[in-house]
Amino acid sequence: MKAVTIRDGRLLFEEHPDPAPGSGEVLVRVWAAGINGADMHQRAGRYPAPPGSPQDIPGLELAGEVVERGPGAERFRDGDRVMGIVGGGGQAELAVVNERILMTIPDEIGWPPAGGFPETFTTAHDALFTQAGLHPGEHLLVHGGAGGVGTAAIQLGVTAGARVTATVRNPELRGAVGALGAEVIAPEGFAEHGPFDVILELVGAVNLADNIAALNTQGRIAVIGIGAGATGELNLGLLMSKRGRIHGSMLRARPLEEKALTARAIERSVLPLLASGALKVLVAETYPLSQAKIAYDRFAAGGKLGKIVLTG
Amino acid sequence: MKAVTIRDGRLLFEEHPDPAPGSGEVLVRVWAAGINGADMHQRAGRYPAPPGSPQDIPGLELAGEVVERGPGAERFRDGDRVMGIVGGGGQAELAVVNERILMTIPDEIGWPPAGGFPETFTTAHDALFTQAGLHPGEHLLVHGGAGGVGTAAIQLGVTAGARVTATVRNPELRGAVGALGAEVIAPEGFAEHGPFDVILELVGAVNLADNIAALNTQGRIAVIGIGAGATGELNLGLLMSKRGRIHGSMLRARPLEEKALTARAIERSVLPLLASGALKVLVAETYPLSQAKIAYDRFAAGGKLGKIVLTG
Repeated sequence: MKAVTIRDGRLLFEEHPDPAPGSGEVLVRVWAAGINGADMHQRAGRYPAPPGSPQDIPGLELAGEVVERGPGAERFRDGDRVMGIVGGGGQAELAVVNERILMTIPDEIGWPPAGGFPETFTTAHDALFTQAGLHPGEHLLVHGGAGGVGTAAIQLGVTAGARVTATVRNPELRGAVGALGAEVIAPEGFAEHGPFDVILELVGAVNLADNIAALNTQGRIAVIGIGAGATGELNLGLLMSKRGRIHGSMLRARPLEEKALTARAIERSVLPLLASGALKVLVAETYPLSQAKIAYDRFAAGGKLGKIVLTG
Repeated sequence: MKAVTIRDGRLLFEEHPDPAPGSGEVLVRVWAAGINGADMHQRAGRYPAPPGSPQDIPGLELAGEVVERGPGAERFRDGDRVMGIVGGGGQAELAVVNERILMTIPDEIGWPPAGGFPETFTTAHDALFTQAGLHPGEHLLVHGGAGGVGTAAIQLGVTAGARVTATVRNPELRGAVGALGAEVIAPEGFAEHGPFDVILELVGAVNLADNIAALNTQGRIAVIGIGAGATGELNLGLLMSKRGRIHGSMLRARPLEEKALTARAIERSVLPLLASGALKVLVAETYPLSQAKIAYDRFAAGGKLGKIVLTG
């Protein structure tokens, strides 16, 4: 098989041995695989793949067809359309995946949106509901609303009955983000639009002090992106008086059983809304796997709305 | 009645009109009332009593006898021994208290320990279990283990099957704190004794960076005391990789219904252990209400093990 390959910081498209499914695993012919921020970090050598995942093939999510099943793999049949989060190796023609972390793609959803769905919607859903416990009627702030996780979080918040405000730096994208149901504001002075019950932080520590200041009583901050800086000053006295809490999280480092649990939560709570059209995977652009370098550079340039997806 | 009275930063013992119980309230003849850190702040003018509480009479907790019941107050009879957390006004001969926040004092417990029980054990229990979700087998770190909340937290952690480590600055107190079931260490270099699943922060932001560094995967930090500084640098990237969370909390600002709920939790989970002797309220010293100034100065001087309690 051929696969996107990282070697010495360069992005290539190279031949690899076909992988073979082990116990409880299936072999997937990948038809779409989204690009994520972690891929950029991995290309730069700052974010090695976890043990057990291909070290030189990037890709945290994939969608494709089951073409072979290992011993004891019973959830799917050959030809089933599946998608899921993987520790790495998603950006290849073939990938071996534990069947417990895979989800069935709704019939209504094509390959590119399916390939861009798992990482962003799982990340957003886990942060908003499993961690921050977002409730109907609450006021949600999404920092970085135009990205993949941001657009997923806005839609999940709206469908859950929350009032959603989102910061978007690029003025040209604000209208499209607003069409998802959010009140869209510039990052500067966002705290004046609070108080917020839940804040989803996709930007970085630059917002930390104002996040605490704009937090409602018993508010929750979920930090899942820090591209604009990791370290900031925290006023514990203010956090105490707000009776607030700050969650840090990432999906990639979780053990298989936790990834499987999040997949079950997504099947139950999110896939019905995706199938009905209430939730949409915004795909900004698609590129063939062989043009991964162009696609990565496009991702890194920013200013897009939604996902960039590689197609098989 | 006479009551401890704060006027222009001075601590007096003065005559006040007897309070009368309103709807759902009881009048309590106070026989013991613990001193807490918040009383020091209130004396210094930095921590005004919440609305509805006496502004000039300090005291966040009390134990005494019911001597009169307002309309609709049905939980207790005259002569019942009760204790509870109040918004203020506990350090007086008489206090009016909503009956929902009161708990029955176990027969085995005398007045001074009853007067020093509610604030510390409720604070510690709420932080460890309701917020941080401490589980049996987990490793708990208590920062500031010799104080009222610290000694309560150590005992609660031990009875809940946690392994407990506690920092104690004063070497003379370490033996007595260790007798509560904790491994006692100096504050310097505490992180080397981790990783910790739950950290109870009673000291301040000075520990923040090392708390995050010493946190186990999915660990929780509950911040309920910041006497040694409110502001510190937080590394969100490290919090993310630990998948950790930081809670800030305080009891005093909570609405009546939340205080009542915490009282029900203490009745269910803590009072049986207090009655059996598995938990002990450590009372360092008692002073009559009329000697509040001496007692406050003793509290402020530190270096004591457990509570200082005023007696009626």
